[in-house]
This record gives sequence, structure tokens and C-alpha cells, in this order.
Amino acid sequence: MTVNTASTSTSETIDICAPLQRVRAAAPLVHNITNYVVMNNTANALLAVGASPAMVHAVDEVEEFAAISRALVVNIGTLSPPWVEAMRLAVARARTGGIPWVLDPVGVGATGYRRSVGAELAGLRPTVIRGNASEILVLAGAVGSAGRGVDSADETATALEPAQRLARATGAVIAMTGAIDYVTDGHRVVTVSNGHEMMARVTGLGCTATALVGAFLGANDDPFAATVAALATLGVAGELATEQSAGPGTLQVNLLDALYRLDEQTLLRCARVHALA
Amino acid sequence: MTVNTASTSTSETIDICAPLQRVRAAAPLVHNITNYVVMNNTANALLAVGASPAMVHAVDEVEEFAAISRALVVNIGTLSPPWVEAMRLAVARARTGGIPWVLDPVGVGATGYRRSVGAELAGLRPTVIRGNASEILVLAGAVGSAGRGVDSADETATALEPAQRLARATGAVIAMTGAIDYVTDGHRVVTVSNGHEMMARVTGLGCTATALVGAFLGANDDPFAATVAALATLGVAGELATEQSAGPGTLQVNLLDALYRLDEQTLLRCARVHALA
Amino acid sequence: MTVNTASTSTSETIDICAPLQRVRAAAPLVHNITNYVVMNNTANALLAVGASPAMVHAVDEVEEFAAISRALVVNIGTLSPPWVEAMRLAVARARTGGIPWVLDPVGVGATGYRRSVGAELAGLRPTVIRGNASEILVLAGAVGSAGRGVDSADETATALEPAQRLARATGAVIAMTGAIDYVTDGHRVVTVSNGHEMMARVTGLGCTATALVGAFLGANDDPFAATVAALATLGVAGELATEQSAGPGTLQVNLLDALYRLDEQTLLRCARVHALA
Repeated sequence: MTVNTASTSTSETIDICAPLQRVRAAAPLVHNITNYVVMNNTANALLAVGASPAMVHAVDEVEEFAAISRALVVNIGTLSPPWVEAMRLAVARARTGGIPWVLDPVGVGATGYRRSVGAELAGLRPTVIRGNASEILVLAGAVGSAGRGVDSADETATALEPAQRLARATGAVIAMTGAIDYVTDGHRVVTVSNGHEMMARVTGLGCTATALVGAFLGANDDPFAATVAALATLGVAGELATEQSAGPGTLQVNLLDALYRLDEQTLLRCARVHALA
Repeated sequence: MTVNTASTSTSETIDICAPLQRVRAAAPLVHNITNYVVMNNTANALLAVGASPAMVHAVDEVEEFAAISRALVVNIGTLSPPWVEAMRLAVARARTGGIPWVLDPVGVGATGYRRSVGAELAGLRPTVIRGNASEILVLAGAVGSAGRGVDSADETATALEPAQRLARATGAVIAMTGAIDYVTDGHRVVTVSNGHEMMARVTGLGCTATALVGAFLGANDDPFAATVAALATLGVAGELATEQSAGPGTLQVNLLDALYRLDEQTLLRCARVHALA
Repeated sequence: MTVNTASTSTSETIDICAPLQRVRAAAPLVHNITNYVVMNNTANALLAVGASPAMVHAVDEVEEFAAISRALVVNIGTLSPPWVEAMRLAVARARTGGIPWVLDPVGVGATGYRRSVGAELAGLRPTVIRGNASEILVLAGAVGSAGRGVDSADETATALEPAQRLARATGAVIAMTGAIDYVTDGHRVVTVSNGHEMMARVTGLGCTATALVGAFLGANDDPFAATVAALATLGVAGELATEQSAGPGTLQVNLLDALYRLDEQTLLRCARVHALA
């Protein structure tokens, strides 16, 4: 498939406001099995956008909790065997209940353990997989990725075709984020060109993107549209927050304010969302 | 017991300043076994109010650490079997040493595992139990609660009688927080009507309330008065912080500043504390 | 050894700017096995200073991850047996690979478990040990320390001779931080007199110091010079941030901005670094 980097349609054809409105109206309960580093910040991002977060990971209760949630977020950032077991149980329960779930394969290329767990989880029919280009390349089985830790050493554009293959192989919508975000279901491709480079100096904003995708999945029926809207919402909020911030410390905090205050007109005016071929 | 929602006395009869002064003078060491989401923020709240926090959970050391602490905080937000075992050991040691402890039954109604652990811990003679109305209702064995996760779906006023029953059954002071906080030992009832609705958009401020109760217990002899003062301190600081905050991100940060800066005159002027029948 | 508290040389003879420049140029991957309380904040501090942080603790992957990192940070703040096992494995792999590592013996005097683990890790040839005076005294086997939890009850000056002994016994550079920081390899002693007392009201800034030492070790060949520069960088950034902060909440955030924005001229002008006899 040829990837056309020129825009073939405008954001006017993709509704990015209604999905956010539905999150705020429904306040979906989002079950997170995520990493220690970002728990506070992603819980706050979910609250700021209007969702209701919960962090629950004990194998004794994840199935029961997944069943009452509207979406499940699985993030392998600080994985360990008991948490992976909880992920398996929660995912199985979510699938049985038709509850959407999103996978964040943090640093999946860094170790054999991560590659193994990441591949296993990617095979359990996630609704969405959100990662940077290096992570998506590793999951797609592409060679040549120099992923180290959680940063992305690959350009997102060159990883688009593997991302599309991964989408078709897993059935998941792939959200590959970077300077430009790509969302693909293996056929359609939409780009989101919001955000600011200073966001890369705040830990876990990729994890925040994943959590917000979870919230949007929990309040919207169309995973593709929900994912595009979630990334646009975060990117626009990030731009607004950066304008107010002297550095990454205040940015982390101002981003939560911006998510809380973001209005429809601003989102519509600032979002740069385009459909590719 | 009839609950009289009209005020029958004023805050002038309840000393809310001396307990805070004692916290600042004594800098009590507060041992927290709490959840991953709030650890940073509750440690900072304890430091801001003048206490000395420590987060210690290994079964290999919780008893020894509880023994040198002035108060113990047990919070089940992200519980798992090894942590519950640590809670049991620390609570037993605290009781042996006459060290006050406060229980936060986060989301106790969400799963069977939480209900079981919550009920067990509530039966171990906590000095104070701090929860929202849904959580208190679950612990009190009341039916009809729609608690899901960590939010409160119940109005605190309707949960007052069950809270009083829970106090009498457990011997604990119950601190049931919401738009209006209720503090009861089963007989006396005091309300604290401070705080701001935006505080519900910051994750873990209920846990912060619990941690502050721990700090106040660690420096004051009267658990009832200490609990009222802790809730008033947090509520007033929250109001002051909200005035400075564009959203929940800055509120989380400004609240710590407000706790640090709060002076006696402001606390006395702003606190809305009333004794009911 | 006589400790001469008068300055015998000036900071002009110690290059504190080049080590920071090297961190920013190399963006070293820093592997952290640290405590739950500070993970978000130390990851953000590492990003702000220009390093690339990762928090990885599963025994299934720590060796592999340590091998691809430029430095390892081991912090026992919320230790438990599985994490201690991960620390052992990661340290062994770091040593095999010639990768520098820094130990933070948080609260090492508080319990027998901490004393045992702290002593074991200190014996594994850390490149640097960063602690407060109480912690350094405990590790040095000094008696009379009243360390309780993570605060320091000892004056750093009186702990200097034990710190020098510890350096000689372990082969590590000792960074003993307080109102005045002391850095010693057992022979040389350098003081860093930056920072502000309000920093003690922000949880985990000692852990941030340790993480920054890790970053500086990962980009510099001389551990002694790297440690001095890391402490001066944090101290100066802390002073600048305090000027902008109404309390410890905003200080935590502004400190990250200050680390991000700190320029060479400001660092050189504000640093108070002196070599003792």
C-alpha cells in the first residue's frame, strides 16, 4: 500500500468534538493496569477529561473489576509476572463482556521479557494498540528498530506500513504517536499533527495518550474515531498548556488544567487531523 | 437517632487550631501503607502540613517500623495479598503499642476481595475510618449502595445513620467525606462544610484526607477532635488553593502550598464546623 | 584526618559545567530500581536534565536492561524481597559491564531489614553512595545515630569522618547531602552549599539527587567530578525554583522547569563548591 503523505481530506469530515462530549457526559469508569511511574498523572488526566479512573491490579479482583468497567487500559511499563497474570485475566474478562481495551506496549523492544509479553498481549485482540514508532515496529516484527527503553528512535512515517500490517494482523486500531500521530485500522490512515516537542520531556505522556484512548473507547462506539479524537484532544491540550509553561514541570500540571478546560470551539479550531489515502 | 441538619452549636466550641499547631510542633512520623497512585501526593501533603511521612510495606519490616511511628495509615486503594498481609502485621503492632491508626477503605464496594479485606480491617479496631458515603455504607452493611470504583454515588446525609452504627460497631471515629463531611463516634456528630467541588477532579484527595487524619492522630490525644481539625484544615486549604487554580492540575500543586502556608487566623475564619444534635 | 571547614580552593578549579553539558549531549539511558513514591518525579527530573530514564524492576529483565543502560540507580525506599533480588541481579550485571551505579540507602537505619539490605548493597562496590548524614552514619557503622525514617537527625559536618571511612571501605564516592553537601572519595572532600531549606518539604528530593548523580555518571568518566556537578546542578536549580514558589507544591514543579532551563552562566555564577583539605 502506498502511503500518500499529502492530505486527501480535511478534519471537517472527522468529528472530533462529539467523542469528547460523550466522555464528559458518560464519565466512563476506566480500569487501568498500568505502570507505577504514571499512575497519579494518568488518573488525573482521566479525571480532567471527565472520565472516572481506577487502578486495580490484584489477580484476586481484576476480573470482577473489569466486568463493571467501560474500558480497560493495559500498560506494560513496569511489568512483572503477577501483573502480567492480572493483565491476562482482565483482558479475558473484558473480551467476554465486549468491553474495549487498549494496549500500551511500553519499551517492548528493550528486553526479551517485554517482547514476549507484548506479543502475547497484542495477540489477545486489543481494540487499540497505542505506541511510539519503535514499539509498533517491534510488535509488527519489523527489523532494524533501535528502540531502547521508552523513547522512540524511529521516525513514525517510515513505520506506517508496518503499523498497517500490525493492524490487519491483530484486528486492532493502531495509534502510533510521535511528532505526527498516525491512526490506522490497516486500511484507513488518519494523521494528527498536534502536540509540542516539550511534551517529550514529561514522563508518561504517551501513557496519558493511551489512558485517554481508553476513556474515549469507554464512551464511544467507533474505536477508530474515538482514537483520533483522543489524540487530537491531548495534542491540542498539550499545545495550549505549553504556551503557559516555562518548562516540563509546569507543563505536566498545566496539561491537566487544559484537558479540564478545553472547549469545543478551541478543539475544532486547533486540531490538525487529516485523512491519508 | 434523629439527625438534625440544623446547626446546634458553632465552630467556636471546637478547637481546630490547636490540633494543627501540635502537628507542626511534633512533626509526627506517619507510617503509610497506601496505594501506588497517591504515594507521592500524600507524602507531600504530610510534609506540607508539618508531619514526617514514610511509606513502608514489606512484611519484613512493617512491624518494626510501625513500632517507631506515631500513627499508621492503611489504605486499600491498590491492595494485593502481600500488602494486605503487611497491613495485618502493622495494625497488630500498632494496637499493641497503643499507636493510633486510620483505615481508608478505597472502593470497598467494588469487588468481593475489597469487601472481604475492608470488613476484616474495619474489625481490627481502627482509631478512625475515613471514606466516602458509598464506602461507609458498604462497611456498615447497608444495602442499596451503588458504589463503583472510588467515587461516591451516595449522598453523605443519607448515610449518616449507617455511619453512626458503624462507629458504634467498630469503636472507630467515622469520617465520612463529601460535599459536607460528617465526623461521628456513634453519638456526637460534627459537620465540616469546607472544600470545593473541583477537588473531586484531583485523584486521591480522599486519600490525602486520610493521611492528614493520620498526622493529626499522631500529634493529638483526642481522635474525634483531631479528625475534625484534619478535615477542616484540608477543606480550608482546598478552598484557598482553588481560588488560585485554573484547573485540577494546578489545584493539586497549590493545595500543597496552601497546607504549608495556612495560618491560624485563616483557618479559624474560613472553617465551617458545626456540631449536630 | 583533620577536616578543615575553611575553604582551601574555589569552585573555579572544579568544572561543574562540562559534566552537565555531557549529560545533555549524551542523553544517557538511566536504569532506575527505585521507590514507588518518587518514580514519577525522578523520571521527570532525569528528563528535565536531559537524560533518558527507565524504571525496570522485574527479575525477568533487569539484567538485560542494565546491560543496555549507561548508569544504574538503586534506591531502597520501598524495598521488598523481590525488588532486592532485582537489585542484586542488576548490580551484578552493571559491574560485569563496567556500568556505573549509585546506591540510595533510604531510611537505612529505620529497621533491621533495611540495615541488612543496605549493608549488603554497599558492599557490592557502588560507584557512588548518596544519603543524608543519618544514613551515611548507619552504613559507616557509626553509633549514636538517631535516624528515623528518611529524615536526617544528624548534622552532616559531624558525619564527615565516618563518610570518609565509608568511602575508603567501599571504594565508593560518598555524597552526603544536607544543608551543606559533602562529596568525598575518602581522601578529597568537596562541599556544595546550594539548595534551600524548603526543599526538605518536598518528598524525595534526596532521591532526585541520587537519580541525577546516576545521569551524570552515565555521561562522565570521573565519578567524583560527576557527583559534585550533579549536586551543584540540583542545588542551584532548587534555589532558582524556590524564588518562584509559594510553597513546596509549586517548588516540586518549578524545580523541574529550573533543571530544564538552567544555563551554564547561571550554574557557574550560583554554584558554591569548595574543596576542603
